[in-house]
Amino acid sequence: MVAQHVKTVFQEKYRGVGRMLIACPDRPGIVAAISRFLYENGANILQSDQYTQDPEGGMFFMRIEFFKEGLEDKIDDLCQAFIPIANEFGIDWKITRASQPKKMVIFVSKEDHCLQELLWNWRAGDLNAEITMVISNHEDSRELVESLGIPFHYLPVTPETKLEVEKRQRELMEGNVDFIVLARYMQILSPYLVEHYRNRVINIHHSFLPAFIGGKPYDQAHKRGVKIIGATAHYVTEELDAGPIIEQDVSRVSHRDDVSDLKKEGRHIERIVLARAVKWHIEDRILVDKNKTVVFT
Amino acid sequence: MVAQHVKTVFQEKYRGVGRMLIACPDRPGIVAAISRFLYENGANILQSDQYTQDPEGGMFFMRIEFFKEGLEDKIDDLCQAFIPIANEFGIDWKITRASQPKKMVIFVSKEDHCLQELLWNWRAGDLNAEITMVISNHEDSRELVESLGIPFHYLPVTPETKLEVEKRQRELMEGNVDFIVLARYMQILSPYLVEHYRNRVINIHHSFLPAFIGGKPYDQAHKRGVKIIGATAHYVTEELDAGPIIEQDVSRVSHRDDVSDLKKEGRHIERIVLARAVKWHIEDRILVDKNKTVVFT
Amino acid sequence: MVAQHVKTVFQEKYRGVGRMLIACPDRPGIVAAISRFLYENGANILQSDQYTQDPEGGMFFMRIEFFKEGLEDKIDDLCQAFIPIANEFGIDWKITRASQPKKMVIFVSKEDHCLQELLWNWRAGDLNAEITMVISNHEDSRELVESLGIPFHYLPVTPETKLEVEKRQRELMEGNVDFIVLARYMQILSPYLVEHYRNRVINIHHSFLPAFIGGKPYDQAHKRGVKIIGATAHYVTEELDAGPIIEQDVSRVSHRDDVSDLKKEGRHIERIVLARAVKWHIEDRILVDKNKTVVFT
Amino acid sequence: MVAQHVKTVFQEKYRGVGRMLIACPDRPGIVAAISRFLYENGANILQSDQYTQDPEGGMFFMRIEFFKEGLEDKIDDLCQAFIPIANEFGIDWKITRASQPKKMVIFVSKEDHCLQELLWNWRAGDLNAEITMVISNHEDSRELVESLGIPFHYLPVTPETKLEVEKRQRELMEGNVDFIVLARYMQILSPYLVEHYRNRVINIHHSFLPAFIGGKPYDQAHKRGVKIIGATAHYVTEELDAGPIIEQDVSRVSHRDDVSDLKKEGRHIERIVLARAVKWHIEDRILVDKNKTVVFT
Repeated sequence: MVAQHVKTVFQEKYRGVGRMLIACPDRPGIVAAISRFLYENGANILQSDQYTQDPEGGMFFMRIEFFKEGLEDKIDDLCQAFIPIANEFGIDWKITRASQPKKMVIFVSKEDHCLQELLWNWRAGDLNAEITMVISNHEDSRELVESLGIPFHYLPVTPETKLEVEKRQRELMEGNVDFIVLARYMQILSPYLVEHYRNRVINIHHSFLPAFIGGKPYDQAHKRGVKIIGATAHYVTEELDAGPIIEQDVSRVSHRDDVSDLKKEGRHIERIVLARAVKWHIEDRILVDKNKTVVFT
Repeated sequence: MVAQHVKTVFQEKYRGVGRMLIACPDRPGIVAAISRFLYENGANILQSDQYTQDPEGGMFFMRIEFFKEGLEDKIDDLCQAFIPIANEFGIDWKITRASQPKKMVIFVSKEDHCLQELLWNWRAGDLNAEITMVISNHEDSRELVESLGIPFHYLPVTPETKLEVEKRQRELMEGNVDFIVLARYMQILSPYLVEHYRNRVINIHHSFLPAFIGGKPYDQAHKRGVKIIGATAHYVTEELDAGPIIEQDVSRVSHRDDVSDLKKEGRHIERIVLARAVKWHIEDRILVDKNKTVVFT
Repeated sequence: MVAQHVKTVFQEKYRGVGRMLIACPDRPGIVAAISRFLYENGANILQSDQYTQDPEGGMFFMRIEFFKEGLEDKIDDLCQAFIPIANEFGIDWKITRASQPKKMVIFVSKEDHCLQELLWNWRAGDLNAEITMVISNHEDSRELVESLGIPFHYLPVTPETKLEVEKRQRELMEGNVDFIVLARYMQILSPYLVEHYRNRVINIHHSFLPAFIGGKPYDQAHKRGVKIIGATAHYVTEELDAGPIIEQDVSRVSHRDDVSDLKKEGRHIERIVLARAVKWHIEDRILVDKNKTVVFT
Repeated sequence: MVAQHVKTVFQEKYRGVGRMLIACPDRPGIVAAISRFLYENGANILQSDQYTQDPEGGMFFMRIEFFKEGLEDKIDDLCQAFIPIANEFGIDWKITRASQPKKMVIFVSKEDHCLQELLWNWRAGDLNAEITMVISNHEDSRELVESLGIPFHYLPVTPETKLEVEKRQRELMEGNVDFIVLARYMQILSPYLVEHYRNRVINIHHSFLPAFIGGKPYDQAHKRGVKIIGATAHYVTEELDAGPIIEQDVSRVSHRDDVSDLKKEGRHIERIVLARAVKWHIEDRILVDKNKTVVFT
């Protein structure tokens, strides 16, 4: 019921709204060609952001939000019509319908503050997503999740069963996932999953990366005596905590704060940073450029 | 010598770089027309920002940074060529050369932290400006200003002489000013100056507007017991402290801070906020929309 | 069940811990007298904060956290023993047991983000409170509240029934309340309630006070074109939005944000600011000094 | 002349004001003993901060600001009188006169923004210091420094002359230094200096430590694609960038910022963080606890 309500809100809000994402080597005439294409195809530009890495030989990134009457039925034609321009400029692109909810799978372990935050944002109508399932290696969140009509899968993990469990996870998600959120999921995904969902798995790391990579970052932060702690949302890659950073934020601490205080304060940052990253991903605001992100906020 | 050095830096950095500012009623085809115009006139878009207030009947704002070989000699032709498009869409526009320093006049009273900050930023090569003069109703800053080769005019003000002094100020600035910065100038400009330099006088108000309008904002803040203080840079209008806000920032305070502590902490915010506003003005990043600003950072 | 768990956590954590709050005219020897008193009564100081307004004729504020074996049974004796010192220095004081949960009543209307935040913090073991009831003029939050075993009272308010409803509210709370949190309760309390619970009603105002007092602050903020929005937690007094400020925080916005964006962003600040204020109130960290607060964080 | 003015301001402001710093194993009765001592010696406590690491076997830290008529002449007697208490509790302690300026030596290389900030704060009467000299391996800042009547020593460094130069530096400072500020001094001090001035050399590192230790932190930050950059003030120890952190702060950046933008933005954070750390050091607000700091702000 919540799901249906959220869906209806966004279908109304984003009727006719499309998004075009562009990445290509920079060269004169790109913007002119694209804006002309949109104009001639009856699409009115609502918002446009671009980033030129380096006019001489760098990459060009662009995100356009446009309105086109009846886009819902005509998006295939629009994509078809864009192919010649894409080929001419060597563009890596996609055009999406803003009203189309993205299928989101949330992984969580015991700590549920990030999960709660995502659910709260979703219920409040901030995330145009269909939460197709929550997967956890603990039972703790079942009640909360199921009370919202969302399927909950309990899949405990041991070193021995890890790969088997990941196969099961992938089966469950098959056809039911656009992107995955690791909302404080305390397991490291193996390359089997990471490769398959490249740039589609968002993790929240509980430190200000690249400081305190790996386990127990708040213990590390306390030991080092930092005066500010942080959290980092990033796409997951094979290398631990080294994927493209989407968003970071921080909070001030002092000598009075012990490790448990840092954890408590950190939870506030983690959930906010993760929620922002998820929202931006859903709204097609993030382009990955090698090991970095271009975020059009 | 500083002045010459700054000028040379920016002439090199911004060779061939132009900026186009656009404001007009929104309507389909604007972006296409403008980007086509630039492309056909050999201008490559480096950066583009736009803001659509409301696709139905709202205003459309745009800032484009472009590169055109030899722009320095061809800007008049470019402007001429743009007139038909401007007329077609009813555009309020300007095209500037980024390498051209803006003539900046700084007004200051006794407190010199904002003046110092601007001078420091200028010397560090952050502000593409020619500081044509500093005008003050006190002698305090003369040595500092003149040591940098900048003319300093001491013009004391009394209620009786105010209008006469403003006439003298305007004479001094005639032909020597693109915009004015009130860097903690503790006099209220009369409409005589305000009207003449509309949207070209930047003031720093030492509070988080619209809280604590008028005099002694830190005393007011202390009395009210706020936990955060702020500063606001805005364009000056006839109504005191009510002009379009360009930038604001804040800092945390506590019950321990007395009025003089607030003032000290406030100085840090004031100078940073003012320096940002001045930089954005110089870089043509601010468009005024009635009593608000659109700032493309 | 949640309630019982929270209670147990704090009874363990704060066994033997007491808090002493002091306010009196400043004068030499106060700290010596108090610390000697505690020492001689077997209380070891864990944390001490003080604030001297002005050594010449100002007020002196102090908060001490101490450990005394078996405090739970001996607090009355301790208070009794302190009376002579209190009289000597003219001290306004209280001694509390940190393990004793405060009885909290939450008022809420339709928007539930602040209520959710408080409940989340409470469940996470951050708030040593017993939530004795939630009172609302809407039915929306009933399910959430009752699912946690907390009584929910639906008391709709009209201008005609207001006073009658407040009487009913007071009856319900009689003996069941230490302090009240207005977690986005969109009714103005009448002096009947405000006087009775002086310095015990915490409100969250959705602006950076004293800017945008009164209704629709986000609309006001949008109209003024501010670049930063805020929220303010304060004790409620007879004068609207003018009570002692406990905590404030802010968030950056831009010309792109319309009123509904400000509201969304504002919700994040509101809930965090309110949660901090409630936590500090529960932990006896706030002393009210006329129309201001001294907050020992 | 500036120096004399600053000195006079603080002599007046802090007449009779003393500071007592305490570090010892925690144990009941410390506060009582100390506050009784102060009371019986005619010292009125103005401000007191304390931190108990762990009541069971941890360390206890305290900073007291007090007023004692005629302290200037009686500080030796006061210290003498305190020795028995210090011995009883095993206290590591000092008592200072707040009116006594600390002798500060500033080291700087080419970039002068941190130097300028310190000089500006000093002239504004925020730092009760006597700047006895500025030492630089470049000539760039000579004019600025000497214009304020401060001795400037140009001591270029090569790998071959490093130790010899450090000997020279130490000779120059002999009897003329209480603490040293490395205001963007791009040379690593050898243990010869570090050991001699333990916990008395403050460095500003241009990253959010422990991220980006070592050289070119902004290049590292850009390469990693962080969304926030920072700066860290710390005491210098033998291990590079690993000394006790005094203060940190951060600033938001985006994909648009290249390395030179990060450097520019970073300069703002560096100077503010360093200025805070220096001020706290001067005001005896920092206690070093192994590899961490306790900062009583």
